[in-house]
Amino acid sequence: MRLSKYFLPTLKENPADAQIVSHRLMLRAGMIRQAASGIYSWLPMGFKVLRKLENIVHEEQIRAGHNPMLMPTLQSADLWRESGRYDDYGKEMLRITDRHGRDMLYGPTNEELITDIFRDSVQSHKDLPLTLYHIQWKFRDEVRPRFGVMRGREFFMKDGYNFDVDKPSAMHAYNRHLVSYLRTYERMGLKAIPMRADSGPIGGDDTHEFLVLADTGESEVFYDKNILDLHLGDREIDYDDWDQCAGIMKEWTTPYARTDETHDEAKFNEIPEDRRMSSRGIEVGQIFYFGTKYSDAMNAKVVNSENKEVPVHMGSHGIGVSRLIGAIIEASHDDNGIIWPEAVTPFGVGIVNLKQGDEGTDGACEALYKSATVLGLDPLYDDRNERAGAKFASMDLIGLPWRITVGPRGLKNGVVELTNRKSGESEEMTAELALEKLTKIYAGS
Amino acid sequence: MRLSKYFLPTLKENPADAQIVSHRLMLRAGMIRQAASGIYSWLPMGFKVLRKLENIVHEEQIRAGHNPMLMPTLQSADLWRESGRYDDYGKEMLRITDRHGRDMLYGPTNEELITDIFRDSVQSHKDLPLTLYHIQWKFRDEVRPRFGVMRGREFFMKDGYNFDVDKPSAMHAYNRHLVSYLRTYERMGLKAIPMRADSGPIGGDDTHEFLVLADTGESEVFYDKNILDLHLGDREIDYDDWDQCAGIMKEWTTPYARTDETHDEAKFNEIPEDRRMSSRGIEVGQIFYFGTKYSDAMNAKVVNSENKEVPVHMGSHGIGVSRLIGAIIEASHDDNGIIWPEAVTPFGVGIVNLKQGDEGTDGACEALYKSATVLGLDPLYDDRNERAGAKFASMDLIGLPWRITVGPRGLKNGVVELTNRKSGESEEMTAELALEKLTKIYAGS
Repeated sequence: MRLSKYFLPTLKENPADAQIVSHRLMLRAGMIRQAASGIYSWLPMGFKVLRKLENIVHEEQIRAGHNPMLMPTLQSADLWRESGRYDDYGKEMLRITDRHGRDMLYGPTNEELITDIFRDSVQSHKDLPLTLYHIQWKFRDEVRPRFGVMRGREFFMKDGYNFDVDKPSAMHAYNRHLVSYLRTYERMGLKAIPMRADSGPIGGDDTHEFLVLADTGESEVFYDKNILDLHLGDREIDYDDWDQCAGIMKEWTTPYARTDETHDEAKFNEIPEDRRMSSRGIEVGQIFYFGTKYSDAMNAKVVNSENKEVPVHMGSHGIGVSRLIGAIIEASHDDNGIIWPEAVTPFGVGIVNLKQGDEGTDGACEALYKSATVLGLDPLYDDRNERAGAKFASMDLIGLPWRITVGPRGLKNGVVELTNRKSGESEEMTAELALEKLTKIYAGS
Repeated sequence: MRLSKYFLPTLKENPADAQIVSHRLMLRAGMIRQAASGIYSWLPMGFKVLRKLENIVHEEQIRAGHNPMLMPTLQSADLWRESGRYDDYGKEMLRITDRHGRDMLYGPTNEELITDIFRDSVQSHKDLPLTLYHIQWKFRDEVRPRFGVMRGREFFMKDGYNFDVDKPSAMHAYNRHLVSYLRTYERMGLKAIPMRADSGPIGGDDTHEFLVLADTGESEVFYDKNILDLHLGDREIDYDDWDQCAGIMKEWTTPYARTDETHDEAKFNEIPEDRRMSSRGIEVGQIFYFGTKYSDAMNAKVVNSENKEVPVHMGSHGIGVSRLIGAIIEASHDDNGIIWPEAVTPFGVGIVNLKQGDEGTDGACEALYKSATVLGLDPLYDDRNERAGAKFASMDLIGLPWRITVGPRGLKNGVVELTNRKSGESEEMTAELALEKLTKIYAGS
């Protein structure tokens, strides 16, 4: 993409109303723009990152054997009356009346609707296990929306629902989701720690939240330092293998890790003092097992292998996709702007032309831009008539992990400059070598 | 995908409330399920097709140089008061009040919001031309929703907005959209005819609708038979070339083609009688040039090359993505079910095992399934314990363009059967040859 043709309205000043760094940087980098309180438009670069995260979530869900689908944003109030949650949910549920006076709502979650689909379509344990999920816009009418997309009213969420014939199968689904979530966050370059949590209005006893450590997190968290050393890495995972999934669950949940809601001071103090950590965290996902709470209320039954009708066991599992962008920025930035992990960066490399209008430099940049495009590096070429300082500031602000700087002086020696956004380190090399290096890096990410 | 692990709740009976064939077939094939009046859940196979169409629209829009972004579903009423449309829009606009008593609405279209984004970010003609678009859920509170996704209340639409410094540039944007839409529909295997139309609540004089011919269409259409011979085919298009785009516009709009709203009997009668056609059509897109209607009302100005402030010239351009699925099915089905064009089929090929449980047949199917997957043919393997007749009926209903049937008798002779859904023709050949043939077909689609 040529910056001259891209819609990237960056801001020079810090927006007054943005309290946290991710909100400030997303506004300044031209990623989002507020449309109404707690409701955002995603400008091209913001949308591009959102789409990348969405695709990673889809890939990892499909890999785990889950079925993608899509439920609508608006729902009928009737289903929520059936489960009893219509009155319970409070003012955070956006209630709507249509032209015929029917009560509707903007879905904050989908347990009722998915249970309705299930009970009409599945009658036998032979069609289980089944996990259905979607990634769709939700609405929660927060009393004080703030922190940009981290606590907006309209937000993009993956929510998935497992249906199993009994509790052991449902617990495997729970473990399977934990593993698939760990993989999802790792792929995004995030360290997310599963912590025992409270279930809130979803219900159920078994629930873990996934928290990313960041100074600006809304929750206080307490954990054993050892948990930071755990990585899935490239281990082969068989999502149908109950033992393997349970093993990973155990590995990640044995070290102490809790939010302030479930913190147990006595247990925490059993850890050696030098491993006791407390900090702040941002919730980026949550998994629940709630058994037959909804299937009982809504009469969702299957015939089991003993030919007996039993209520289906369920859980639900969410990843806050739009909120993740904020969390990634909170966890990865510096004073000059965002620092994207390679897996989710909007563009693979920025190309800065130090002397726009100079024939030799323009030609070298065009050739580089073309080669990088063909190689799939998805370059962003700053071809504007701006001075070098302004171009560097823009590139630092939007945070592409790599930058290639092209100027007449380097070209005289046959080199360009390859700069890493995170370390700030630069190296001179031929354009060919720079592209080769980046191709290798992205092939591995 | 193995059918035994897929959520595909097909129906044997015709649903009573579905009046048109696409609605009936989408329900029967387990693609959609009604969640509330005019609001649908997209089950896995429906969602898969929806996503394919969405991706084709994105690819063709990006190819035309347009910037993808995403606006929210809910908007503040204030912007619509500024343009004067809040009161004009009538009961089809779903009006919402949030917990603080603020007036909001579920966007039926986005002229106001995009103009607001534009006026805050762009001040100079140097940043033009600019076209921004998104693909997002919209809501129109139809008094009598019907025909399934063809006239639903919550629907998925691509809407794009061009911003240009003067009318000639804006007319190029109009032509460019026409060309990109023709390409989009052709890629989907659809014949869509641009017809001069009325502008309705969007406003403006220049507007064309794109109609797909189908007996069940909501509009009566009149056209010159010659228009059916026009194809873009694989001609190279330079979307920055004003003359080429204007030429294609002329080629497609010179033959008479109008809906009943703009039909001119006298002009129609100038065509030789054997070329005068009238039939019914389904609207699948519309393009508008409306000049400065919104930029005047909302004060969206740019400084032109003479350093003079002028209101920006705009147009808007829509493709009904969810409705397209209905239109494709209306245009391509038979008594047994859907017939997907190869470009949008949910799976590339169906594999039918005639003798599930037979070691040899199961083994051959597994090998075939594996090879087809590796080749990227995205097979759907019917591995259920059902008799052959039921498997054939399911495959015909869901309408994959190709089927490979594997049975013990054929295997004895080293062959499988490759069947074309549309023609019904079958050919015996080795499994290798069948896969080779399909790979070639899909490489060209």
